[in-house]
Amino acid sequence: METVSIIQLIESKQHKELKEHLADANAFDLAEEFENLNREQQAILFRSLPKDAAANVFSHLPAETKENLIGLLTDPELSHIVNDLFLDDAVDFIEEMPANVVKRVLKNASEDTRKQINQLLQYHEDSAGSIMTTEYVDLREEMTVEEAFARIRRVGMDKETIYTCYVVDGKRVLDGVVTVRTLLLANAADRVGDVMSTNVLCAATGDDREAVAAIFQKYDLIALPVVDTGGHLVGIITVDDVMEVLEEENTEDFYKMAAIEPSDDPYLTSGVLEIAKKRIFWLLVLMISGICTGGIITHYEEVLQNLPALIASIPMLMDTGGNAGAQSSTVIIRGMAIGELHLSDGLRILWKELRVSALVGIVLGMFNVAYKWLVSGDPRLAVAIGVSLFTTVILAKTIGSMLPLLAKWLKADPALMAAPIITTLVDAGGLIVYFSIASLIL
Amino acid sequence: METVSIIQLIESKQHKELKEHLADANAFDLAEEFENLNREQQAILFRSLPKDAAANVFSHLPAETKENLIGLLTDPELSHIVNDLFLDDAVDFIEEMPANVVKRVLKNASEDTRKQINQLLQYHEDSAGSIMTTEYVDLREEMTVEEAFARIRRVGMDKETIYTCYVVDGKRVLDGVVTVRTLLLANAADRVGDVMSTNVLCAATGDDREAVAAIFQKYDLIALPVVDTGGHLVGIITVDDVMEVLEEENTEDFYKMAAIEPSDDPYLTSGVLEIAKKRIFWLLVLMISGICTGGIITHYEEVLQNLPALIASIPMLMDTGGNAGAQSSTVIIRGMAIGELHLSDGLRILWKELRVSALVGIVLGMFNVAYKWLVSGDPRLAVAIGVSLFTTVILAKTIGSMLPLLAKWLKADPALMAAPIITTLVDAGGLIVYFSIASLIL
Repeated sequence: METVSIIQLIESKQHKELKEHLADANAFDLAEEFENLNREQQAILFRSLPKDAAANVFSHLPAETKENLIGLLTDPELSHIVNDLFLDDAVDFIEEMPANVVKRVLKNASEDTRKQINQLLQYHEDSAGSIMTTEYVDLREEMTVEEAFARIRRVGMDKETIYTCYVVDGKRVLDGVVTVRTLLLANAADRVGDVMSTNVLCAATGDDREAVAAIFQKYDLIALPVVDTGGHLVGIITVDDVMEVLEEENTEDFYKMAAIEPSDDPYLTSGVLEIAKKRIFWLLVLMISGICTGGIITHYEEVLQNLPALIASIPMLMDTGGNAGAQSSTVIIRGMAIGELHLSDGLRILWKELRVSALVGIVLGMFNVAYKWLVSGDPRLAVAIGVSLFTTVILAKTIGSMLPLLAKWLKADPALMAAPIITTLVDAGGLIVYFSIASLIL
Repeated sequence: METVSIIQLIESKQHKELKEHLADANAFDLAEEFENLNREQQAILFRSLPKDAAANVFSHLPAETKENLIGLLTDPELSHIVNDLFLDDAVDFIEEMPANVVKRVLKNASEDTRKQINQLLQYHEDSAGSIMTTEYVDLREEMTVEEAFARIRRVGMDKETIYTCYVVDGKRVLDGVVTVRTLLLANAADRVGDVMSTNVLCAATGDDREAVAAIFQKYDLIALPVVDTGGHLVGIITVDDVMEVLEEENTEDFYKMAAIEPSDDPYLTSGVLEIAKKRIFWLLVLMISGICTGGIITHYEEVLQNLPALIASIPMLMDTGGNAGAQSSTVIIRGMAIGELHLSDGLRILWKELRVSALVGIVLGMFNVAYKWLVSGDPRLAVAIGVSLFTTVILAKTIGSMLPLLAKWLKADPALMAAPIITTLVDAGGLIVYFSIASLIL
C-alpha cells in the first residue's frame, strides 16, 4: 500500500475508492498511515475504516492520535470502539489517557466491559494480571469434542486466541487445557475431559511479568492461563504481549546499565526536562564518587611531585580498568537475565574470571612495560605501570563479576551493578594500587 | 515433578514406575532432568521416554548431552530420533555437533530428511532461511473447507503449527494464507480460495533474521511464510524461534556495547582462553587510546606544575564525561534497535541532546563550582572546573548521540559506538577542554 494514494484519496474526497482501498489492508499498516495525516484527515480515514477493523486499528495507534480521535468521535462511535477492543488493549489505552478522557471512555463502555476494565486496572503494572486478557475460550470436561467446536465457532470470533481452550468446572477452577490441534485429531464423540491435558502450566495474577515471559521462552508457549489464589481461571496471557514485555525489560536493562532511570515514554516526544531528570540522579552520584577518587590523587601528591611521569598513565589505567570491569559485569548481568547463570554459580564464575583476568592482564601489562620502557627509557617506571595495570585488571574483573551476584543475593537488580558504578569503584581501587606500587618500586 | 524421584527410580531400577512417571511429563522439564544425571543414567532415562516424546525432549537438551547420548544410541534408535525431529531443530543440532557425529547422524536419516536438512544447512546463519522449518500445512485454493480440515487432520500431527495454513498452486507459488480460526468459522462447503487472505506477509530466504523478528513484533504474528526469489513457498518461521533470535540479538548488543566480541557459547562451558580472546581485542584498542589521552596530560605538564590542584579533578571529569556520553549513546542505540529512532531523526536528536546536556551540565557544573570554592577557597579554580565540566557534558552527549547515527549511516553496527569508545573519545576531548579553560582563566 502506498502512502500517497491514501492521502490523495482523502484530499480528493474519493470516499468510495478510499473505502475499497481500505477493505483488504492490514490493521498494523493502517495504524502507521495515521502518522502522515493531520487531525481532520485522521478523522476521515478512521471513519472510512471497515466497521469490524476500526477497533483493531485503533489499538495500534500512538497515544497522541488516540486522544485526538476520541475528541472528534461521537458518543455512539466511541462506545462501539471501546466495546470492540480486546480488553487488554482497552486497559493499556485507558492507562495512557488523561483523566477527563478516561471518564468519557468508561461512560461509553457497556456495563460488562466497564466492570472488566475496572478489574484489570487493579493489577500492579509489572504483574501477570496487568498483561492478561479475559477473552479466552472456556470449555467443560463433560462436553464432547463436537460440542467444543460448536462453542469455539460461537464465541471464538471475539477471543484473542482460540487455539488453546481452557477447561473449567462449575466454580471456574481450571482443570485442564486442550488445543484445537488435539480437538481436530480427536473423535467428535470423545469427551473433552478425556483428551485434555491436566499437566497445566499457569501463572498467578500477582506473578512478575518478567517471570511469566521466562516461562513462555522455556516452554515455547503461545498462551498461558492466569489463575487467582483459589485456582480460578481469571484470564490468559498471549505471546504477542510477552514479546512486548521482553522488549520493554531489555530496554530497561540497557537503560539501567547506562545509569539512566528507565522510562516507557518514547524519546522523541518526551520533554527535555523529563529526559534530563531521568539522567541527572546517577550522574550526580557518580560525579561525587569521582570527586572522592580525585581525593586519592591528592593524598599521593608527594609521590606525584617526585615523579610527574606517573600522571600520564592515569587515563590509560582508569579507562582499561573500567572497560575490563564492564565486560565482566555485562556478561554476568546478561547471563542472569536470560537464566543461564545463577547465584549458585558464584564460585565457578569467580574462578573463571580470575583466570581470564590474569591472562588478559598479562597481555595488556606486558604491552605497557614494553611501550613505556621504549618511550621513557626507565625500566622501573615501565614495570610499575605494567604491574599496576595487571593488578587493576584482576581487581576490575573480580569486582565486575561479583557485584552483580551480590546485588542478586541482596534481592536488588543486578543491572544496576553495571559499567558506571563498576568504573567508579575500579578507578578508586586502581589508583590506590598504582600509587602504592609506584611508591614501592620507585 | 521432583528431581529426586527420577534419579531414585533409575537407581533402584524401577523401570516400569519410571515409564509411568514419564508418561505425562513436560518435554522441557524432562530435558532439564538430564543435567543432574551421569552418562549411563542419561541413557537409561532417554530410553525410558515415551517413543513419541523422545525426539522432542532430545531437541531441548544441551549440545554436550546430545553428543553423549548419540554415542550410546544404536543406529536404528538414532535413525528414529533424527527422522522425528522438527527439521529446524535437526539443523540446529547438526550445526553444533563435530564432523564425525554429523556423518553418523546424516547416515541414519531417511533420504527425504537428509535432503531437506542439507538444503536448510545452506542458508547463511543470520538469514530467514536458517531459522525456518519446512514442516507446514499446505492447502490448495480449490479445496473445500471440509477437505482442508481432512488434510490438516491427516498431516497436522507432524507440523510445527497447524493454525496458519498456506495455500499454494501447482508450482508451489504462495497464493494466500488461511487460519484455522477462519476455517472453523466458514461453511464446510466453502472453497479455501474464497475464504483465504491474499494480503500475505512473507519473508525471503535471504532476509536478515533480525528484520524477520521485527515483522513478527510489528504484526503480532505467530508464524510467517518464507518464499524464494520465484515466490515459491519454501518454509515457515514460528514465533518460538523468533523469540530465541530476539534474545540472541539482544545479548549480542549487550556484548558489543561492553566491547566484547559476541559469542553464542554458554559462559560456564566456554574455555578461559576462548573468553579472554573475545575480550582482549577491544581492551587493547581502547588501552592504546588511553595511552594517547595520557599524552594530552603530558602536553600540558607546564600548566599542571604551576597548578597541581588541577590533577585532583581529572577522575571526576573523565568519569562524568564518560557516563554522560554513555547515557546518550545507549538511548540512541536502543532506540534504533527497536525501530523507534531513525537516521532521519538526526537533527531532532541533536537538538534534544544539546538542550538536555545544557540542563544537566549546568546542574553538575554549579555543584562543582560550589563544592570546589568551599573546599579550596579559590573561586577562579572552582569556576574553571565548573565550566570545564559543563562543556565536557555537552561534548559527551553530542558525541554519544551522534556517533551511533554516524555508524548507522556508514552501514556499520551502531552498538559498537557505545560506552567504551565514547568514554575514550570524551576523555581526550574533556581533558583538552579542561586544560585550555584552566590556562585561560587561571
